[in-house]
Amino acid sequence: MPDTNTPPPAKLWDGRFDEATDPLVEAFTESVSFDARLAPYDIQGSIAHATMLGRVGILSAEEVTAITDGLNAIAGEISAGDFVWKPALEDVHMNIEQALTDRIGDAGKKLHTARSRNDQVATDIRLFLRDAVDQTIAALNSFADTLLDVAEREADTIVPGHTHLQVAQPVSFGHHMLAWRAMLLRDAERLADCRKRINRMPLGSAALAGTPHPIDRSITCDLLGFDSIIDNSLDAVSDRDFAIEFCSAASLIMVHLSRMSEELILWASAPFGFVELPDRFCTGSSIMPQKKNPDIAELVRGKSGRVIGSLQSLLVIMKGQPLAYNRDNQEDKEPLFDTVDTVLRSLHVFAPMVGAMAVKRERCLAAAAQGFSTATDLADYLVIKGVPFRDAHSIVGRCVRLATDRGCDLAELPLTEMQAISDAISDDVFDVLTVEGSVAARDHIGGTAPAQVRAAVQRARSG
Amino acid sequence: MPDTNTPPPAKLWDGRFDEATDPLVEAFTESVSFDARLAPYDIQGSIAHATMLGRVGILSAEEVTAITDGLNAIAGEISAGDFVWKPALEDVHMNIEQALTDRIGDAGKKLHTARSRNDQVATDIRLFLRDAVDQTIAALNSFADTLLDVAEREADTIVPGHTHLQVAQPVSFGHHMLAWRAMLLRDAERLADCRKRINRMPLGSAALAGTPHPIDRSITCDLLGFDSIIDNSLDAVSDRDFAIEFCSAASLIMVHLSRMSEELILWASAPFGFVELPDRFCTGSSIMPQKKNPDIAELVRGKSGRVIGSLQSLLVIMKGQPLAYNRDNQEDKEPLFDTVDTVLRSLHVFAPMVGAMAVKRERCLAAAAQGFSTATDLADYLVIKGVPFRDAHSIVGRCVRLATDRGCDLAELPLTEMQAISDAISDDVFDVLTVEGSVAARDHIGGTAPAQVRAAVQRARSG
Amino acid sequence: MPDTNTPPPAKLWDGRFDEATDPLVEAFTESVSFDARLAPYDIQGSIAHATMLGRVGILSAEEVTAITDGLNAIAGEISAGDFVWKPALEDVHMNIEQALTDRIGDAGKKLHTARSRNDQVATDIRLFLRDAVDQTIAALNSFADTLLDVAEREADTIVPGHTHLQVAQPVSFGHHMLAWRAMLLRDAERLADCRKRINRMPLGSAALAGTPHPIDRSITCDLLGFDSIIDNSLDAVSDRDFAIEFCSAASLIMVHLSRMSEELILWASAPFGFVELPDRFCTGSSIMPQKKNPDIAELVRGKSGRVIGSLQSLLVIMKGQPLAYNRDNQEDKEPLFDTVDTVLRSLHVFAPMVGAMAVKRERCLAAAAQGFSTATDLADYLVIKGVPFRDAHSIVGRCVRLATDRGCDLAELPLTEMQAISDAISDDVFDVLTVEGSVAARDHIGGTAPAQVRAAVQRARSG
Amino acid sequence: MPDTNTPPPAKLWDGRFDEATDPLVEAFTESVSFDARLAPYDIQGSIAHATMLGRVGILSAEEVTAITDGLNAIAGEISAGDFVWKPALEDVHMNIEQALTDRIGDAGKKLHTARSRNDQVATDIRLFLRDAVDQTIAALNSFADTLLDVAEREADTIVPGHTHLQVAQPVSFGHHMLAWRAMLLRDAERLADCRKRINRMPLGSAALAGTPHPIDRSITCDLLGFDSIIDNSLDAVSDRDFAIEFCSAASLIMVHLSRMSEELILWASAPFGFVELPDRFCTGSSIMPQKKNPDIAELVRGKSGRVIGSLQSLLVIMKGQPLAYNRDNQEDKEPLFDTVDTVLRSLHVFAPMVGAMAVKRERCLAAAAQGFSTATDLADYLVIKGVPFRDAHSIVGRCVRLATDRGCDLAELPLTEMQAISDAISDDVFDVLTVEGSVAARDHIGGTAPAQVRAAVQRARSG
Repeated sequence: MPDTNTPPPAKLWDGRFDEATDPLVEAFTESVSFDARLAPYDIQGSIAHATMLGRVGILSAEEVTAITDGLNAIAGEISAGDFVWKPALEDVHMNIEQALTDRIGDAGKKLHTARSRNDQVATDIRLFLRDAVDQTIAALNSFADTLLDVAEREADTIVPGHTHLQVAQPVSFGHHMLAWRAMLLRDAERLADCRKRINRMPLGSAALAGTPHPIDRSITCDLLGFDSIIDNSLDAVSDRDFAIEFCSAASLIMVHLSRMSEELILWASAPFGFVELPDRFCTGSSIMPQKKNPDIAELVRGKSGRVIGSLQSLLVIMKGQPLAYNRDNQEDKEPLFDTVDTVLRSLHVFAPMVGAMAVKRERCLAAAAQGFSTATDLADYLVIKGVPFRDAHSIVGRCVRLATDRGCDLAELPLTEMQAISDAISDDVFDVLTVEGSVAARDHIGGTAPAQVRAAVQRARSG
Repeated sequence: MPDTNTPPPAKLWDGRFDEATDPLVEAFTESVSFDARLAPYDIQGSIAHATMLGRVGILSAEEVTAITDGLNAIAGEISAGDFVWKPALEDVHMNIEQALTDRIGDAGKKLHTARSRNDQVATDIRLFLRDAVDQTIAALNSFADTLLDVAEREADTIVPGHTHLQVAQPVSFGHHMLAWRAMLLRDAERLADCRKRINRMPLGSAALAGTPHPIDRSITCDLLGFDSIIDNSLDAVSDRDFAIEFCSAASLIMVHLSRMSEELILWASAPFGFVELPDRFCTGSSIMPQKKNPDIAELVRGKSGRVIGSLQSLLVIMKGQPLAYNRDNQEDKEPLFDTVDTVLRSLHVFAPMVGAMAVKRERCLAAAAQGFSTATDLADYLVIKGVPFRDAHSIVGRCVRLATDRGCDLAELPLTEMQAISDAISDDVFDVLTVEGSVAARDHIGGTAPAQVRAAVQRARSG
Repeated sequence: MPDTNTPPPAKLWDGRFDEATDPLVEAFTESVSFDARLAPYDIQGSIAHATMLGRVGILSAEEVTAITDGLNAIAGEISAGDFVWKPALEDVHMNIEQALTDRIGDAGKKLHTARSRNDQVATDIRLFLRDAVDQTIAALNSFADTLLDVAEREADTIVPGHTHLQVAQPVSFGHHMLAWRAMLLRDAERLADCRKRINRMPLGSAALAGTPHPIDRSITCDLLGFDSIIDNSLDAVSDRDFAIEFCSAASLIMVHLSRMSEELILWASAPFGFVELPDRFCTGSSIMPQKKNPDIAELVRGKSGRVIGSLQSLLVIMKGQPLAYNRDNQEDKEPLFDTVDTVLRSLHVFAPMVGAMAVKRERCLAAAAQGFSTATDLADYLVIKGVPFRDAHSIVGRCVRLATDRGCDLAELPLTEMQAISDAISDDVFDVLTVEGSVAARDHIGGTAPAQVRAAVQRARSG
Repeated sequence: MPDTNTPPPAKLWDGRFDEATDPLVEAFTESVSFDARLAPYDIQGSIAHATMLGRVGILSAEEVTAITDGLNAIAGEISAGDFVWKPALEDVHMNIEQALTDRIGDAGKKLHTARSRNDQVATDIRLFLRDAVDQTIAALNSFADTLLDVAEREADTIVPGHTHLQVAQPVSFGHHMLAWRAMLLRDAERLADCRKRINRMPLGSAALAGTPHPIDRSITCDLLGFDSIIDNSLDAVSDRDFAIEFCSAASLIMVHLSRMSEELILWASAPFGFVELPDRFCTGSSIMPQKKNPDIAELVRGKSGRVIGSLQSLLVIMKGQPLAYNRDNQEDKEPLFDTVDTVLRSLHVFAPMVGAMAVKRERCLAAAAQGFSTATDLADYLVIKGVPFRDAHSIVGRCVRLATDRGCDLAELPLTEMQAISDAISDDVFDVLTVEGSVAARDHIGGTAPAQVRAAVQRARSG
């Protein structure tokens, strides 16, 4: 008859220990203050594990039912906020297992058969992250749809396109929005690739070597919706690549949002004045009563640093660890959780702000007409007249210098003076010097012509 | 008649400038000292561009031939080391274009029609990186094959599996090698995903807005072997996601090599002594004549810092840039090139070293038998006898404490003393306390049993 | 008569706003959930500010008293946990100011005269960080003292000194402890330098340009114990160098603790076995009953990634911000707070663990005698006999090869065989081949001789 | 008689090796391709070491002379570009030592007595970095002086001070320049602190434990100008804190230059138009003939990523290394060298550009007058009239809203309408609504009043 009369130890693992854990150590090593968040995934995994143990005959049907019912009850308590988490029980796994045993007795003590916290936590994080990826992809797509609407609405709005923050060529505001959208679509695509590597099952690897019990991993794989089984137990418990890959993809999302933020902050500044952000997305100043600040954009730009820093943390944490599990890995959770939250919250607040911004079309157009933005069109005009591009470029440079000296725009130069620089110029030149003409002329796949913008919107909507 | 009599300017862009570039500035801004490396890709792209210009009627057939022949001749000079790079011409693009014009005259000046350095350099880097990815995947697969051989050879070699660098459970050395291989396969898979986002064509986006010339981007796309055309010109010239994604994947490769290095350094140390590295992969000491150091592993571990740092550099560079191209992006090349080189060189030197290391099987086995590595087997034995896992765990903890006090191993404890701790123990217990038995028992997909290791090798070979 | 009849706005700054802040935006931009921690410093700063306003005649004595009493009462509420923080009031500053006005009326509304949240928060963080630096220096010094004790106790304990994790030369364990101590002393010195740049006063810079009110900044400077006044208002509100410098110093502390952790983990491993960590600083395994894991060391090693990541976050956040204050800076607090906490907690738990570890002297000595650790002594012996060092090095290399082939140590080689390699060797050679002799011979400042270790301890104690 | 007849080994350390180094390994491990740069410092250190060996009687006077003369001759060859570096000799140290022995025979072989490459390279890097720090401090001070001149010249130029890139309050352009200068002075101060920790001598620590030879480290310390001797040999050879601390300080310098760059790029953009950069510091476009780009500022902003990445590399490299020297440390040099070069070159090109920029005073003034920049002055006016600050803030908010609705500035609001909002306003209000009045009123230490700017310049010049 099994020995079950021993009083339960203070820790679930301290059979061989001579002294109690130092309270400072307990506080330093506990993780339940942050990994409690994994509880729904932990319970999902435990139910699947128990179900499998039942199917292969390690647990009885009654035991499986007791475990499943007990875990579901605990899940209810947790979501109702009634569950008492105990730091002395270290982590989410031990807290739930102990609560289960308190509730259902011996069957609870059998749940950890053929399992270790090492494969258990790896399973939990993957289930959590799979959900997070799905939510993030949804948020990216939703923002991308918003941009499609803005792009369509502003297809004919002309703004200066910048390189080096100098006016380069006029572009369609809608085209600019589609450039933002392209970034987001790549992000979603990258996350979908990352999801393939997340959605693989470590469960069944136990501590690091597998288990002598006759488990059937395909059962848990099916129950938990994993795409496949990780077929090396050492790798399964030590791999955190998927978390790093997620944080890399998240860093790119934040870099994109930060780039958009930089532009919004510029556009909302007095000298640019291309857009106005709605009051409800701005805040004021405690001392300067006139201020209306683009705080969301600034905060998101700042939060890119946070996510990039978390990526760095994870790389540093993993960098020199021998196989298999080391406690360093406990430090993977907070940066990962923070990254998930930061990205999702940033997308959720950023998208409606962009959707609601007012584009000040006259200011945009006026700015696009400055800075000799159609100089390239003049060069291209000369090329069409037969001047080699490099010579055309040089001729236009001299026209620009002349106009700068005169304090006028290219279109305001007298024809004769331009002809003195190049006799390839004739009076049809003025047609190419308007910003509207410039934009409309770039009428190929990927070009900024409003017609192309509308076509791209159509393709996206019908795709 | 076009004006072509003007003497060429010192810079290809200085028509509007009043003073020459400061020499300090010229030295600071030039990039040809590192981007000359892109020459083959730049020429490949230019030939495709000229061919397209010919097909749509912008260049004559003679001009296309002259350009193509000229560029091929320049490519020959470059690969022969006979080409003189001029920092005053700034970058690889201007150097080659100027050399072409010097060689073929006016046709050379027409090459840059409907193109800008912005879409040109984006094309070059993508072509370069596509090659680099293919080479890296090949190197990963080659190393993975080496590991397959070692795994098969050492399937029956037993080593301690560690968690927390404490002896955990005995595992097959071959199983450990397959865990390494699993990391590399993920790396290759990740690069293949990254390649999809690299292999898209920016060419035709010109400076940022497209071009008024009647180009046909599908022609260049086909000629250059791109999978698709990037359909937003602003995005095409400003996107460097693909470089960052590559560096993220490269960082993971280096993290993996660094983890392997950490293990090799440990295993080659005197107290572990699990492997011996061949002399030809080691170096000695200038002062300590007895030293034989695992320098390759240490350097690779160190080089992980280099690659991770480059990833961070790129993220910082891109983090707040408004669209479209900014000169900050010139700084993307050195970290990217260095990452490509570091990863490839590390793989090329690491793989044969691992293939040639000698595994000291007796040392491995002896170490695996220490540290109560079969304690979990005892717990599992008790579970099979009907003891709930948690109680079994506690019983074994007390057995371990007893053995520690006696200074003996679990298998050396008298049966009666074990039975005093739990009456579920009988004399068949000694069968599960051997390391061979422990390893063989973990006989499921992903488990460490030698039979599973051999099966995994077979699957890999036939897959 | 002043207008004070207007109902207070929902936000303290929304006079010019047409619509209420979006709840999503409110949640996204609030900082009180983390900056409430600055409350004691905020109140300290406000009391000093009010006192100064009183001394220069901007506030009446009664107003100053009301403000001071009100703030002290609020401080009491906060420390008692009775204060209700309101996210709608955004941050710690607005929460306290509103509570003050609710409590004392109009005088509370005058507190923000000649001040902005920009100089206020800069002041708060500096006061907070000054305290944190002082605590960290104290923790470093306390750990350094612990190491002095261990060094003295283990001055005569001989361990292998490693390079490349290969046995290099025998060293005193106490000497090794003093190397650790040297790292910590540099850390403390670096923090003291950093403190100079922290302890400068931004208060009085208002939003960014100073104030037209007749303030006297020297009064607040004295009251708050700052070393000096920051004499440029734009710099004062935008500078976060001091936080980055602190995080750099903190990263080095964590790198040091991580290096020590790496060594402790190695030393506590079965093959090394140099030390045993007390049970109360270790934890066990949920599945492997025999495990006793050096979790503290592993966690600290992992936490180095966290602190390094936070440094990176701050650098990224500040990297491209134009002057003066931008909302990005709100993101500086969480990484800074987390860094302060992580470093302090790590030092507090690490130091007593190191103080309590048991050094297993026989294991250490045995390991030091392996691996030809006295080969360098043989070379030095030859040098003293007149052999040029390079030749001596080569001779010893051949002796080592001979001993390797024989499977014996250098001291076990027959004299005649050594003499066959070099006739400079005579029978006094065996005196230099003992580890004790090797260690004792390195008897100069910085050398590992136990006498030097004891002398260093003495210097430290009397210094 | 010493044995010196053995043919020299291919490597200086291969006495115990059975096979030659693999060529791939040789190429992978060599460092002379980058550490040759340390040659002057290596020779300086070797001469000091030889001199010390002579003074304590280990070398004869003739040997010291031969070594010194030989090394000086080699130094001449190196600086003349005549020295042939051999990768097979691994590094700068071995190349020089071998060349010395080739030149002077046996005395050369004695140079490495009582020394190891471990303490040698640590000495070299410290000497190199001490020089680099001195040059960087000089460059910082020179740039700071330039800013003093600009500040004085533009003390009366009024620009908008921004927070959140929104117009906040008018400030003196000179004041803004002094804010930049304050960053640089902190950088110089930080480097001076770092220099203290660089300028300590590791030499005499040999491989890791010191040496049995009767060295006198105070002699080499004096000869090399070190401030003190590092008094723990293990620490001396493994410490790279000083390189990391330098890179941290360098990262802050680059963050500062990046922030200045961000502002210059903004100011040089068409919508801002506050400054014009001289042509000689700008470059043009290969396609857009009108472009004049602030490339230096953009490149410097980009290079901040490079330096920050190198800091991260070094932290990662050092993060988990056990004592004492590991080959990972070879990877410390390239990031360090690159950081030194990048910072110096950036400062050298940036400072004259800033000195030569033209400030467009009318554009600055016009921008400063927009955006209700004197709203805070109105609030302060009300406070002086007795309105509590918070009420004043609210009143001004309503005035701003009124002016916004009217499309006019605050100074253009009719007095009666303002009085309808607050009866504390009388006709003296218009005096405080001018930007000149606003700036002049901030007349305290640190405030933006031109008088304060001039006073600050005077203090700096006389200090």
